[in-house]
This record gives sequence, C-alpha cells and structure tokens, in this order.
Amino acid sequence: MEIIAEKINGTRARVLEAIKQRDAAYIRDLARRQAEAGSHWLDVNAGTHPSQEGEDLVWLIEQVQAVTDVPLCIDSANPEAISMAVRELNKTPMINSISGEPKRLEGILPIVAEYNCKVIVLAMDSNTIPKDCAGRMAIINNVMAETRAARVPDSDVYVDPLLMTIATDVQSTLVVLEIMREVRRSYPEAHLTVGLSNVSFGLPSRSYINRTFVPLAMQAGLDSVILDPLDTEVRAAILAADVLLGQDKHCLNYLRAARQGVLA
Amino acid sequence: MEIIAEKINGTRARVLEAIKQRDAAYIRDLARRQAEAGSHWLDVNAGTHPSQEGEDLVWLIEQVQAVTDVPLCIDSANPEAISMAVRELNKTPMINSISGEPKRLEGILPIVAEYNCKVIVLAMDSNTIPKDCAGRMAIINNVMAETRAARVPDSDVYVDPLLMTIATDVQSTLVVLEIMREVRRSYPEAHLTVGLSNVSFGLPSRSYINRTFVPLAMQAGLDSVILDPLDTEVRAAILAADVLLGQDKHCLNYLRAARQGVLA
Repeated sequence: MEIIAEKINGTRARVLEAIKQRDAAYIRDLARRQAEAGSHWLDVNAGTHPSQEGEDLVWLIEQVQAVTDVPLCIDSANPEAISMAVRELNKTPMINSISGEPKRLEGILPIVAEYNCKVIVLAMDSNTIPKDCAGRMAIINNVMAETRAARVPDSDVYVDPLLMTIATDVQSTLVVLEIMREVRRSYPEAHLTVGLSNVSFGLPSRSYINRTFVPLAMQAGLDSVILDPLDTEVRAAILAADVLLGQDKHCLNYLRAARQGVLA
Repeated sequence: MEIIAEKINGTRARVLEAIKQRDAAYIRDLARRQAEAGSHWLDVNAGTHPSQEGEDLVWLIEQVQAVTDVPLCIDSANPEAISMAVRELNKTPMINSISGEPKRLEGILPIVAEYNCKVIVLAMDSNTIPKDCAGRMAIINNVMAETRAARVPDSDVYVDPLLMTIATDVQSTLVVLEIMREVRRSYPEAHLTVGLSNVSFGLPSRSYINRTFVPLAMQAGLDSVILDPLDTEVRAAILAADVLLGQDKHCLNYLRAARQGVLA
C-alpha cells in the first residue's frame, strides 16, 4: 500500500498561513513527521490564487526537499504552476491530478508525459461526477485512452474513483468499490487511490468510518491512499488488512509494527 | 448483525472458578453487562466434566435468566447436558453446535428439531477440518441435508465456517470469506457466524486484527458473530461497516451510537 501524505495542503488554514508567512519551520516539521511515519509520497498543495500558486508551490517544494527525499505529489489544477514545480524536483513526482476536463488534459497531460511523472486520474469531467459506476467508468475509459495516446504507461496511472461522504448517500461507497473492481479488471497494471477522509465528511467519530473503509477498499484492489499518516489507527487498519488479505507473509510487517509500538 | 456474547464460558479460568464456587454474583454481573451492551444472544458454556456438565449448565442458566431476558446460546457437545438445559429455558435457545460428526448429529439434532431451536453448524467432521473451501463446503452440504431432513428450516441454521488464526496460515481468512460467499449463494436463508477472536490467536494487539476482519466478513455475508460485546472497538467496527455497506439508512444507528458515547 502506497501512502500519499495529505497534510501539506494550502486549503487547510494553518498551512495557508505558513505559506503566506513563509514559515519554513512549520512546513519542514510537517514534511519530516509525515516522512518518518512511512509515507511513500508527500502531497504538496499551495492552495493559493493562480497568479501566486507557482511561486508558492516552488517555495513549498524547497522546504520539503530540504528535510526529506520522499518524492512529492504535486497537487494542482494549474498547468503553469505544475510546470514551475516539476523543474524544482529532485525526484520524479506524481501529479495530482488530471480528469476528463479538456483544460486539464490539454494543459497537464503533456507535462506528465514529458517528465515521465506518475499521475492521478479523477473520475469526473467538466460537467459532472456521475453517481453510478457506468458513468464514472466511461470517463475513466476516455482519460485512459488519452494517457495511452500520450504514451504514459498504465503502471504510472493512479485512478481515483472519487470517494464521497457516506453521510448523504449510503450507497456511494458501494459504487466506489464497484468502480475499483472494474478498474482492476480493465486496467490490471494501473493503480487505485482515494482521498480516504472524504468518506466520513459530516459524520461524528470520523476515524471509525475511515479505518473501516480501508479493508473493504483493499479487498476491492486499492493499492494507494491519500491520508493523514500521523493517524496511527488508520495505519494499524492497513497493517491488519494486509495480514487478513494474505499480503503480509508470516505477518512479518504486522509483528514489526507491534514491536515498534505502532499498534499500541 | 446478531451479537452472540462469548464471556460466560467455563473454558475461561475465572468463569470455571465461579461455576465451581457457585458464585452467582459474578455470573449475573457478566450476564447483565453483556446484555446491556446490546447482545442478541448470551452464550453459556459450563466447560466442566461431562458427568457434571448438565447440572452446572442448569445452574448457569438460572443465574443468567434471573437478570436478563436475552435468549441463550447453549454451548455444549453433550446431548445429555443440552437436554437438561433446554427444559430450563424461558425462551427458545440457539444450540452451539452440531457438525459433521455422527455423534453430534444423532445426539443433538433431534433436540434442535423437537424444541425448534436455532443451531450453529460447524464445518468439521470427526476426522478433520479441511483447509480448503471445497472440503468444508462438502461437510456443510452434508449437515444441511441432515437439518433439512429433520425439518429444521434453513433460517434457523447458523453456519460457522470455522475461523482460524491468521498467525499460522495467512491464506486461512481468504478461505473463510470464500466459504461465506458460497454459503450465501447455496443457502440464502441460512445465517453465517464465526468466533471472531480466533482470527488473531497468537498475534500481538489482537483487537486490530479482530476489528479489521469485521467489515471483510460482513461484505461476504456475515450476519452474526460470537464475540466479546464489551470490546467497544469491535462494536464500532460493526456500526461503521453497516454504514459503509449501505445497511444503515441515513446512518441512523451510527449517529445514535455516537450520541450514546459508544464511539468515544
């Protein structure tokens, strides 16, 4: 399971303040703690006005790369900002994200192809996020045709079926699990990812919903997830699900985590 | 999800001592706390020598029925003890259990049929617990033929595919999930149950494994489980899985549990 750490995100008020104040210590500390928690990617989102975003993203990247060599996931819908960002990176990044929106496809997919980036594909287009599996699969199929035409290998693609809160539609998780199984069948080399905490938006005691979704999604093929790596309950759920799904031979990872105090 | 509460079990040293000492207060307290935690059945196991078991079981039943009207699950392999027990009961019980062993079938199934009991069917026979799905399904099919011949409706049967520890065979949970899906297809009216804590035997931080198994098994059709109802983490996992699998309309049960402090 590849962990994409979510905390360096300018849509969070405290992070936005740090970006505006150029508070390097705050950002570096977030980067270091998420890296030490075993993250495979650190998501970086400047969350600022398009005219300012590229410059802010470059500053964020400098802070993160000063303290860790975990690769970055550049989180932006802005091709100019992404262009500025990729030139600063020590390691090949993931780009978060493209979708069925022509503007994103035309602006961002060429950068992904040129720099051999990994890329997250969202199951939405300019008009809508379809509620059912067939509608979202149609969008995914269209975007996958574009990534293949751009010679991006399926193994560099992370399909995000768009996990929505269960609070307003109790069928929504079942739809997402169905899409995951369908993507696994249609694109066996591609990866799957979701923004985990979305599933519990608006509910109390959200962590219970988040951590219980993990094994269901892993069984459906999820092999990557965007989450808060400092939430040890969710990390424990991933470790336990790996055991139960036969993916942790002799329970070695689970036993190591227990020794290290992760399962306290 | 029907909860079968496991704690009044004479194979636990403290309970065995209470049985031997006729410590009514201890047993009544266990019964009361498990009932208050929302149990649908209270398992009662005397765990004593066959010559003594019937008498001990009757005493246990008297203590439990003195404090709660939650129905009982009579946990014994001894037809004589079960015969003595069923005559003491205020409500129709569940019998735990029969299996492919001729001795159990011949001794216990007639009692189940006569008293219209619910009954747990274990996927084992006199010789063995087969490791694979086909082997255990063959036993289950044989026993289901016997329960049907005895005119026990499928809806009174709780099939237990026998959950083993994941510590010694990381494929064992996948086999159990496969059996559950197969039972759901072959016997749609029958229930499924497992002894939850078995799955983590021998591992550290067992509760993480137990609670992570819950959503996987519920997705495969589990609708009943033998567990410690005082473990609030496992109860939270059941509530969250009901939400995520679309079985808790408008999240009403989850929200009520949050208000009641169950999801603290």
